[in-house]
Amino acid sequence: MNATCPVPESRYAQIVLGHGSGGRLSQNLLEQVFLPHFSGKTLALLEDQAQLLPPSEPGARLAFTTDSFVVSPLFFPGGDIGRLAVCGTVNDLCVGGAIPQSLSAAFVLEEGFPLADLTRIVVSMAATCREAGVEIVTGDTKVVERGKADGVFITTSGIGVIPSGRQLSIAALHPGDALIVSGPIGDHGIAILSVREGIDFETELVSDCAPLASLTCALFELGLKIRAMRDPTRGGLSGVLQDMAVRSNVGIEIDEARVPVRDEVRAASDLLGLDPLYIACEGRLVTAVAPDDAERLLAAMRAHPLGQGAAIIGHAVTEHPRTVQMRSRIGGERVVPVLSGEQLPRIC
Amino acid sequence: MNATCPVPESRYAQIVLGHGSGGRLSQNLLEQVFLPHFSGKTLALLEDQAQLLPPSEPGARLAFTTDSFVVSPLFFPGGDIGRLAVCGTVNDLCVGGAIPQSLSAAFVLEEGFPLADLTRIVVSMAATCREAGVEIVTGDTKVVERGKADGVFITTSGIGVIPSGRQLSIAALHPGDALIVSGPIGDHGIAILSVREGIDFETELVSDCAPLASLTCALFELGLKIRAMRDPTRGGLSGVLQDMAVRSNVGIEIDEARVPVRDEVRAASDLLGLDPLYIACEGRLVTAVAPDDAERLLAAMRAHPLGQGAAIIGHAVTEHPRTVQMRSRIGGERVVPVLSGEQLPRIC
Repeated sequence: MNATCPVPESRYAQIVLGHGSGGRLSQNLLEQVFLPHFSGKTLALLEDQAQLLPPSEPGARLAFTTDSFVVSPLFFPGGDIGRLAVCGTVNDLCVGGAIPQSLSAAFVLEEGFPLADLTRIVVSMAATCREAGVEIVTGDTKVVERGKADGVFITTSGIGVIPSGRQLSIAALHPGDALIVSGPIGDHGIAILSVREGIDFETELVSDCAPLASLTCALFELGLKIRAMRDPTRGGLSGVLQDMAVRSNVGIEIDEARVPVRDEVRAASDLLGLDPLYIACEGRLVTAVAPDDAERLLAAMRAHPLGQGAAIIGHAVTEHPRTVQMRSRIGGERVVPVLSGEQLPRIC
Repeated sequence: MNATCPVPESRYAQIVLGHGSGGRLSQNLLEQVFLPHFSGKTLALLEDQAQLLPPSEPGARLAFTTDSFVVSPLFFPGGDIGRLAVCGTVNDLCVGGAIPQSLSAAFVLEEGFPLADLTRIVVSMAATCREAGVEIVTGDTKVVERGKADGVFITTSGIGVIPSGRQLSIAALHPGDALIVSGPIGDHGIAILSVREGIDFETELVSDCAPLASLTCALFELGLKIRAMRDPTRGGLSGVLQDMAVRSNVGIEIDEARVPVRDEVRAASDLLGLDPLYIACEGRLVTAVAPDDAERLLAAMRAHPLGQGAAIIGHAVTEHPRTVQMRSRIGGERVVPVLSGEQLPRIC
């Protein structure tokens, strides 16, 4: 990711069990790898817990979320497990209407994991935090024996502030609401898979992995009737639409021709027998908005670097509640089924 | 742990990759294993983030912490990875002066992990949450291929509220402050090790693993001059005292004869060449308190079920700053060195 990543001076080039001991080696790892990059004042206090000021605005609420990241490979076109771990948690806060603020990061490291790779991941996390306007304020590191993990797993949790009066929920869709996706779907999943399967594209396909905070904050400022937001990660666009239909007790209709999919993603999906509707994104947004605000929201999205490929893909309807239907390119209607197995393991 | 653990009806008796897909199997796991036990309203909303009310008291702060748990074996005398994952995070909030409130729980599961074991762990987490007065409000589950993890790893994060004016820090010790430990040290580490090494004790040694919230809350109510608290987990009592000495720039002197250690723990430590000072506890508290409040704090601790074995073990001093010294049973003084390797891997 970064040619200038400083590799810490240490007599260890790899993680050893002692790095998880809570003793001198743990201290070294903290001082040499984590603290130089996660440089906030709160983390530097090294208490067992970070102390944060609650929101001062009356009526504001806190948002709190967590995700573990086990992506394989750890480094992929457009990102790495560290960037993903920051984006995933930041985006889960954003889609609740929150302004993301503080993150925790917990690492499970496999004995023998190269310290240079860990440093590269930490540098990437720090850069992504700056991009998202958040700070890592507390963390943990554990080490397990060789063969008992797969390099590194990262769990991030996050806290954000939801301004007073902002109320989004996937249970809040009304029939007629427009559904807008912020850009082409499936880039992340196919970028990962292309590395695993050794697929070459003419142009490099990169993960869409990005923190959505600047996009969602810009959209909220417009004061539009946004009902719900979700980032289509595992389960893909289909999973988000299913959840919205079921939780809001509405039908959802989408138009296949309007769902943005890159040619490379479509081609790779066909080759691998996958449906882009189920492939994970890590920097896209699905928004349900009142019909009279749909065009304004679309225009605002397209004006933002993270929403340039936005499109209205369908609507909530009163018919077939709790079911997602898609009009195909050739005009037929079909039910979009719930994903029943594992389509792509370890995509995030 | 619990003979009546309901094993969910499912055609799967073991975790499969599809349980991490974000599709139907993920949903089944959530509905059959997690939601019945983690039964709070916030979690049941199944949004991407929990929404919480900030503290209403002016001047209150938030505490935020995280820990990953990789203990081996998963079930041990006196606890299991689930109980440990709740206690560890709850206790990290408590020692900051916080009243623990909301927890997140993220699971990394290995393909093939028995659903019955997962259910047993979840039931134990739920019981420990009730004991600690906290609620699991958000979570995540990932699945990795067989051989890429070790059964289950759990990462919990927690949020608590620190009442206005309460200010603890391991950097706040003054010379003269008394150091009090709430009970015998090393039970947790030796209980784990006894299972691993097949050591039999005449009476069963059980882990001290416990949520400390009721004890710390009772102590804070006394209004004593408590400077700092820590739970001596990895690195043990020694690690906590080292941190306090270094961060407060004081010397620390302890008296070996006053440090409570059970006979079984001492015997097993001798057998294994370990020093109880470095062995992890998961339900003990080390407190630094102003000298004139030491006896009152000790009495209050002893009156609480979690502090019956409490003892004043030493003091902060102006001499030898940043160094911990111990007066041995036979009268000599020695420096307690910083743990330099891994004494007991995967103890938490």
